[in-house]
Amino acid sequence: MSRCPFASRRGFFGLISSLAPLLLVRQAGAKAGDGESSGTALLPPSDPLRGREDFYGPLQGGILPPPQRHTCFAVFDVTTHDRAALIALLRRWTEAAARLCEGAPLASPAGPGPSVESGEALGLGPARLTLTFGFGPTLFEKEGRDRFGLAAQRPASLAPLPRFPGDQFLEGHEDGDLSVQASADDPQVAFHAVRALARLGGKDAALRWLQNGFLPATQPGETPRNLMGFKDGTNNPRAPEEIRAHVLVGEEGPAWLQGGSILVVRRIRIALEHWDQMPVAVQEQVIGRRKLSGAPLNGAAEFDPVDLAARDANGDPVIPEDAHIRLAAPAAARGLRMLRRSYAYHDGANVIAERWPPWRQGLEYDAGLLFLAYQRDPRRAFTPLFAKMARIDALSQFTTHTATGVFAIPPGIPGPGHFIGERLFV
Amino acid sequence: MSRCPFASRRGFFGLISSLAPLLLVRQAGAKAGDGESSGTALLPPSDPLRGREDFYGPLQGGILPPPQRHTCFAVFDVTTHDRAALIALLRRWTEAAARLCEGAPLASPAGPGPSVESGEALGLGPARLTLTFGFGPTLFEKEGRDRFGLAAQRPASLAPLPRFPGDQFLEGHEDGDLSVQASADDPQVAFHAVRALARLGGKDAALRWLQNGFLPATQPGETPRNLMGFKDGTNNPRAPEEIRAHVLVGEEGPAWLQGGSILVVRRIRIALEHWDQMPVAVQEQVIGRRKLSGAPLNGAAEFDPVDLAARDANGDPVIPEDAHIRLAAPAAARGLRMLRRSYAYHDGANVIAERWPPWRQGLEYDAGLLFLAYQRDPRRAFTPLFAKMARIDALSQFTTHTATGVFAIPPGIPGPGHFIGERLFV
Repeated sequence: MSRCPFASRRGFFGLISSLAPLLLVRQAGAKAGDGESSGTALLPPSDPLRGREDFYGPLQGGILPPPQRHTCFAVFDVTTHDRAALIALLRRWTEAAARLCEGAPLASPAGPGPSVESGEALGLGPARLTLTFGFGPTLFEKEGRDRFGLAAQRPASLAPLPRFPGDQFLEGHEDGDLSVQASADDPQVAFHAVRALARLGGKDAALRWLQNGFLPATQPGETPRNLMGFKDGTNNPRAPEEIRAHVLVGEEGPAWLQGGSILVVRRIRIALEHWDQMPVAVQEQVIGRRKLSGAPLNGAAEFDPVDLAARDANGDPVIPEDAHIRLAAPAAARGLRMLRRSYAYHDGANVIAERWPPWRQGLEYDAGLLFLAYQRDPRRAFTPLFAKMARIDALSQFTTHTATGVFAIPPGIPGPGHFIGERLFV
Repeated sequence: MSRCPFASRRGFFGLISSLAPLLLVRQAGAKAGDGESSGTALLPPSDPLRGREDFYGPLQGGILPPPQRHTCFAVFDVTTHDRAALIALLRRWTEAAARLCEGAPLASPAGPGPSVESGEALGLGPARLTLTFGFGPTLFEKEGRDRFGLAAQRPASLAPLPRFPGDQFLEGHEDGDLSVQASADDPQVAFHAVRALARLGGKDAALRWLQNGFLPATQPGETPRNLMGFKDGTNNPRAPEEIRAHVLVGEEGPAWLQGGSILVVRRIRIALEHWDQMPVAVQEQVIGRRKLSGAPLNGAAEFDPVDLAARDANGDPVIPEDAHIRLAAPAAARGLRMLRRSYAYHDGANVIAERWPPWRQGLEYDAGLLFLAYQRDPRRAFTPLFAKMARIDALSQFTTHTATGVFAIPPGIPGPGHFIGERLFV
């Protein structure tokens, strides 16, 4: 197989069929590192930090591998006005990312001068680091300006999300030109990567917002529980044909994005104090699943099919009309699905003073979900789905969306010498 | 050996000598779980989340075991005015803590009513959870009031720390009545424990501030690197006689605290963007150690003794007069030392607008160190040490202390039926 799938003339569907075996291998689990790269030399053979995910390949690394334990999601504004400087930035980032994903230092952290290598991840290994880059709508056009001669290349599917009822975004936590998601099994490895790329951004890119996340150490094959105590992610698309149909941009997209995806990110604060006061039976009605087993209310086990038509003896729906899984079900978005790769977040606690009954004053956790969903076209997945949810989902009374972004995720980097999104600049 | 060391008449030194073998065993590493408790039943035998730290014992769990990967440090205000309600709160917390450290759910997270078990840690195992409780100065006396009849029992060593040059505390991030530190190898297990205790606090305790932290996955016996890229913790006291001399409160303290300790906590923001611009050689002069090896500037290897008297060919000190390790050296605090169990923290990024050259505006990481140090008496350890550091330590130009606290850490809980700090209420 050619190292560069884009060089072939097989087009999108040829690419996707060559992808299928890769998808299957990836889903079977991460590769163990070979211990040959300088960053892993000190690690014993069994160490999980030796795990390595391929940086080069038809897809970027953050989409299909088993989710890592930690993520650091960063959004940058491009501060240069020069197209060549933007390309140079993307080249610097791509080259550094390839080294970082090997667990290799960017330079020697010694000597008399400053070093681009800050050193805090030395000896930690690759820790399955993946770096996933995205291009926001404003990279193409901002306040009516075609900043880099890219405006004609923006797919219609890549537009800022509409405002939804209840959105309360933190200052600056909206959109942005470039996204970088560093995910790794070690939080210091993930932050190190973002910090290195921010430094390499120099005067051409400025950090806009940043959010960390984590996942519990779930056993392989088990669905992790979110901070609400419920299993989350049960109905994710998994099979290659599902990924192709629902996650990857097809021939409907511009050539540079075909085989890539579109990422929707939302920082969702959850009123855990309020949630925890609810009877478990009410929580289960809100979600539409049992808390302990994860089974849909119409079934007995986690992976039993969700039956939205099921009725109880009184003729009422078993899964309530406003239950989260009903509104999130593929049927609710005309069969379209998203690949959710969300993380929990916990940033401590905020002082609150409510102006409505019961006029509480005190601290509330600044914790919840860093929602991350890859999809083929948000206009046919996240947007209609969430427009409905924001109005009638029973879960919405416990959640507040505090950051938003949508980013085109170009296909992967085929090999050394290439850079992220390069087909956009042809 | 009696399950209750306090029931014996051997007094403090008898207690400490019976502690010595325990100290050695604890330092050798965590025990593997036996898989018998309900929380670990699903975990394979090799899973690190099966690791369990004893909840009962002469010391609280957060002091001696090998540091866990994650911590959630919470400070509470006691909102009741009733001594009996305070005692009941400490009993509730102690009983729940014993279960949490076994990885056992607090209750069934099912059924029609609310549950004290929020469920997000189900199936995750104990993950080496330790819960460490502390009593702040204001528990004993606040604004001149002897709130619970405890004022006479406050040791002189437990007083709010003085203000140091450069302190810039966040709103509410000072002192507090009670501290709870949950440390575990899984962040969701640590947060679950704090969240459970906050719920059990009910109307008697209100969260005041909260800070998460993490450590990189360092190999056993290796010193972790902090976010500045330097090894941190090399010169910690380790031997039982050092712990006894420098960390545990002796007969100079009130009976209820003998065999316990005093914890100083500081949230220290580090100007990483600024630090990363420094030449490595300058960073090494600031710290007094080599970045790569961790060796003191007078030596070749990490554990080479620090020689503050060493001079170079010009007669200048090899370790600069304002180097961090010189000011932190035991000699600088008249031989007294602290057991540092600090964590890195990373809460995203803050908007800044500097009013001085170079008039920067933008984001800066809200990241740094959650400094946690156990000591026998802060008046003879942290306070004089940091008073000097805040004025002349070269490192201080990169750091800002944004939260502060000092808490008496009562001895451990000898067994079921007892509660934390009970000798205070005799």
